[in-house]
Amino acid sequence: MPRALRLLRWLPASDWLARYSKDDATGDAIAALIVTLLLVPQGLAYALLAGMPPETGLYASMLPLIVYGLFGTSRALSVGPAALTSLITASAAGAIAAGDPERFLHAAIGMALLSGLILVVMAALRMGWLTNLLSHPVILGFVSGCAIVIAASQLRHLLGIDAHGENLIQLGFNLFSHLNETHWLTVAIATLAIICLVLPKKLAGALKRASLPHWLAAFLSKSGPVLAMLVTTVLCLLLQLDQQGLAVVGTIPGGLPQPALPRLSQDEWQQVLMPALLLALIGFVESISLAQALAAKRRERINANRELLGLGLANMASGVSGSFAVTGSFSRTTVSFDAGARTPMTGLLAGLAMGGVALWFTGGFTHVPQATLAAIIVMSVISLIEWRELKHLWEFSRPDCLAMAATLAGVLLINVQTGLLIGVVLSLGLFLWRTSQPHVAEVGLVPGTHHFRNIDRHDVERQAHLLSIRVDESLWFGNARSLEDLLYDRTMARPEVRHLVLMCSAINHLDASAVESLQSLNARLDAAGVQLHLSEVKGPVMDLLKKTGLESELSGQIFLSHYLAVEALG
Amino acid sequence: MPRALRLLRWLPASDWLARYSKDDATGDAIAALIVTLLLVPQGLAYALLAGMPPETGLYASMLPLIVYGLFGTSRALSVGPAALTSLITASAAGAIAAGDPERFLHAAIGMALLSGLILVVMAALRMGWLTNLLSHPVILGFVSGCAIVIAASQLRHLLGIDAHGENLIQLGFNLFSHLNETHWLTVAIATLAIICLVLPKKLAGALKRASLPHWLAAFLSKSGPVLAMLVTTVLCLLLQLDQQGLAVVGTIPGGLPQPALPRLSQDEWQQVLMPALLLALIGFVESISLAQALAAKRRERINANRELLGLGLANMASGVSGSFAVTGSFSRTTVSFDAGARTPMTGLLAGLAMGGVALWFTGGFTHVPQATLAAIIVMSVISLIEWRELKHLWEFSRPDCLAMAATLAGVLLINVQTGLLIGVVLSLGLFLWRTSQPHVAEVGLVPGTHHFRNIDRHDVERQAHLLSIRVDESLWFGNARSLEDLLYDRTMARPEVRHLVLMCSAINHLDASAVESLQSLNARLDAAGVQLHLSEVKGPVMDLLKKTGLESELSGQIFLSHYLAVEALG
Repeated sequence: MPRALRLLRWLPASDWLARYSKDDATGDAIAALIVTLLLVPQGLAYALLAGMPPETGLYASMLPLIVYGLFGTSRALSVGPAALTSLITASAAGAIAAGDPERFLHAAIGMALLSGLILVVMAALRMGWLTNLLSHPVILGFVSGCAIVIAASQLRHLLGIDAHGENLIQLGFNLFSHLNETHWLTVAIATLAIICLVLPKKLAGALKRASLPHWLAAFLSKSGPVLAMLVTTVLCLLLQLDQQGLAVVGTIPGGLPQPALPRLSQDEWQQVLMPALLLALIGFVESISLAQALAAKRRERINANRELLGLGLANMASGVSGSFAVTGSFSRTTVSFDAGARTPMTGLLAGLAMGGVALWFTGGFTHVPQATLAAIIVMSVISLIEWRELKHLWEFSRPDCLAMAATLAGVLLINVQTGLLIGVVLSLGLFLWRTSQPHVAEVGLVPGTHHFRNIDRHDVERQAHLLSIRVDESLWFGNARSLEDLLYDRTMARPEVRHLVLMCSAINHLDASAVESLQSLNARLDAAGVQLHLSEVKGPVMDLLKKTGLESELSGQIFLSHYLAVEALG
Repeated sequence: MPRALRLLRWLPASDWLARYSKDDATGDAIAALIVTLLLVPQGLAYALLAGMPPETGLYASMLPLIVYGLFGTSRALSVGPAALTSLITASAAGAIAAGDPERFLHAAIGMALLSGLILVVMAALRMGWLTNLLSHPVILGFVSGCAIVIAASQLRHLLGIDAHGENLIQLGFNLFSHLNETHWLTVAIATLAIICLVLPKKLAGALKRASLPHWLAAFLSKSGPVLAMLVTTVLCLLLQLDQQGLAVVGTIPGGLPQPALPRLSQDEWQQVLMPALLLALIGFVESISLAQALAAKRRERINANRELLGLGLANMASGVSGSFAVTGSFSRTTVSFDAGARTPMTGLLAGLAMGGVALWFTGGFTHVPQATLAAIIVMSVISLIEWRELKHLWEFSRPDCLAMAATLAGVLLINVQTGLLIGVVLSLGLFLWRTSQPHVAEVGLVPGTHHFRNIDRHDVERQAHLLSIRVDESLWFGNARSLEDLLYDRTMARPEVRHLVLMCSAINHLDASAVESLQSLNARLDAAGVQLHLSEVKGPVMDLLKKTGLESELSGQIFLSHYLAVEALG
């Protein structure tokens, strides 16, 4: 096989292109059309959220979609501009730019490029597991916090005033001090846009009951953004509202993006590194969760490393197009899936269609009110706020609730990056804390059986000179020394005890510190005239006891089952 | 009871003072005498190692011993100057002082004071568990590395040249470039001192066999430092070697220390904070391990929080006396224990005796050669180097070996603080990594029994439409998502499978991310026409499944035992 063809086979696209059928083409074309209709208002809105020129929202919806279509493995995922990544871009680039719009633009482009590079490197090093550091409550807290900050940051466009800030305190203060400048025409247009956005959702039930094709019902119920944009833009044009102080998108340069690299100093590249890492991780987590949820519905597989590569190249494509970071979008992906997208061709086609929009239709967006775009953003993010989850976590897992609350508070009160960092460090710390405080139970024999149960929970038999203890955790350096003391103290508290039998059924691992602590416990108990025995030791743990010589050092014996131990020592 | 007396009862000393007997007094007095004899050369040597004036070595051996005697709970621990804490002091104060001896002195005193305060605060907050962050291999690597750096740093005193540095690279380079300046008289005195130090140890066997009292044999076998000091000092005095270029201790100001606080700027206090934390943690770990080892021999108890308080106050006392940080000393403690120390009165008496030495005998130390003190340090630390342990760890636990090697390398090649930090972060990271990569086994029925075992290790029966999998780890956010994928992929790999039964006998906990992943796995499998069942779920995990509603959501059932599950679905 020629070398070029062999390389081509490595493209995930070769899998589905080889078996592409007419049915596939029909499904993909309809889905692409609907996705494009959604992409136009969303692209403009997320560019506004990211603090970028409106045309970059269109650019982020072209090449990245085409590249992901060729390299990604998910058949339905709609990559492109999204709320979270746009917010992170706005916050991080704002901190670097310090008011200079030119620096802002180049920092945002640099972040997209670098986050793409990070994802590609992660794919090469198979580092998809890094996203495991983000626990579910931390992600919930982060997303909820971001949604609130996003909604708050858009209030200025809904009210027609000027109020910036990277957290709720700054935003709240600035909004409040400019509240008397509220532009009521803008508020009216925003209200109209919100009604257009809410109406199709409210009618979703009726649409489903109507005898429409499934994809059409799905599109109509999500057609709010298109409707809002059409209604308010036509109104603005007819009544020339932009001349009465209504902020509009303004003239967008037509044509395709010119490939270029951002102009950043070495120092600025370094500043861009951490936000780029954050964009890479968050973008990937959002994208892969979505892709997996959809793949399961069709019993397909998602290859995490291929996804890293696909999303990474899409971000690099966005950067080269002079635009901001992209990821899988929840709203567009579900619409695309419901509209019957069958292969990544949907994304390819939507990307090409967006190219057409940029070439010939940019004139149509001049009079789109910014208030409409802000309303689209606000309505799409408020569904991400998960207050109930916080209450739910409070009920069944206080540490998880704490991690979520701390992340949320960090995002709301400091900024998005710090909030996430607090969440990750706190959740890891709480995990370490929990495994360092294992559940320890004295056990006794359930009469008439060979089973041993917690003496505090069950009516069981025990012997005066024999102490049976079960530890419900692997032993490692975080708990070894405190367990050593606890076991020693419990034994010393009962002077008549001559044998301590440690039931090891829940111990999956031992590390060197645990071995050292067991040796020390053995010696301390031996000095006090008490023998240490082990029971129900698992295979890998037994191997380790033999290798370290602890097996032969032990003052007592190792029993296959706890019942055998109690029988032999009784 | 009067209030003052009630406060007194809180002193641990009140316990043993109330029952103090004549026998106690005899044992304590003899032990105190021997400890004092050892304290003099060690105090001077560790002051040299810490880079402090010789008298501070005496000061660190007075008030801290008395304070620990009143507040500590260990009956045999000899608190005072020690090798590790002196090295940390030298390294950290050197970095802050940048060549200014006055700043060095005050930084070292500030560290002692602050580390004492940190320990007292830790005692008040019951934070003794913090030391659990130091795994056994990290401590071994740290101690071995420090021992090598200490020995290397003393070579300059043995050779009579000038060569400083905070790691092996700097020390090696400086030693090598000054090697031609070697002062051969100093080398000869150092060799003589080393012979005096080694001889009593070599004769320990013979001393034991001689019909001497146990305590005398113990003292004689450890009398090397006293012997080396006597022999070389007398030689120096008789031959006036100090006039031939032999470096000696020089004039020591007599009298007791004047209580004072260090003069540090706010900026310097901040710089002192991290080394003080390090001194607190390391000092406490060293001290408590020693105290516990001895307490076990007499079936006594050590109260970790009281120990924190005792050691903290001892360090504050050292700081107020104008001296450096202290901790439990291994060599003096074993001598004191063997000499029959019965109560903390030993420490109290030794502290008072050192006061007498400082008042009336400082003139005797003027001609002690520095080479002798350096030889005492080198000979006492080389036994701490644990090469064998590194090889041992390599055989039974690669992650532990890696943690030890990295700590060792960090201490040798960078500095002590960085080395420890590398070790702590790496060992926590490796622990997280391991629990995020759990052992997962497909299990089958051992014919004729109700037991299930790994299909790869045992000859077992399994059914085509039923997949039985055991996970040997608690589920948490670090492994939940990858396990979800692994379980899904394994099920999808066998299209004939209709039931996945997860055997939960080794699952001690679930966190919110694990619940989320189980829900997601349940939904993904359900979409693919496979039922998810659980078996052998532990009590606390079962409670959680009920609270989160996962129990009712599950497409399959929850079985009491795996056998019942296979029977019901078979």
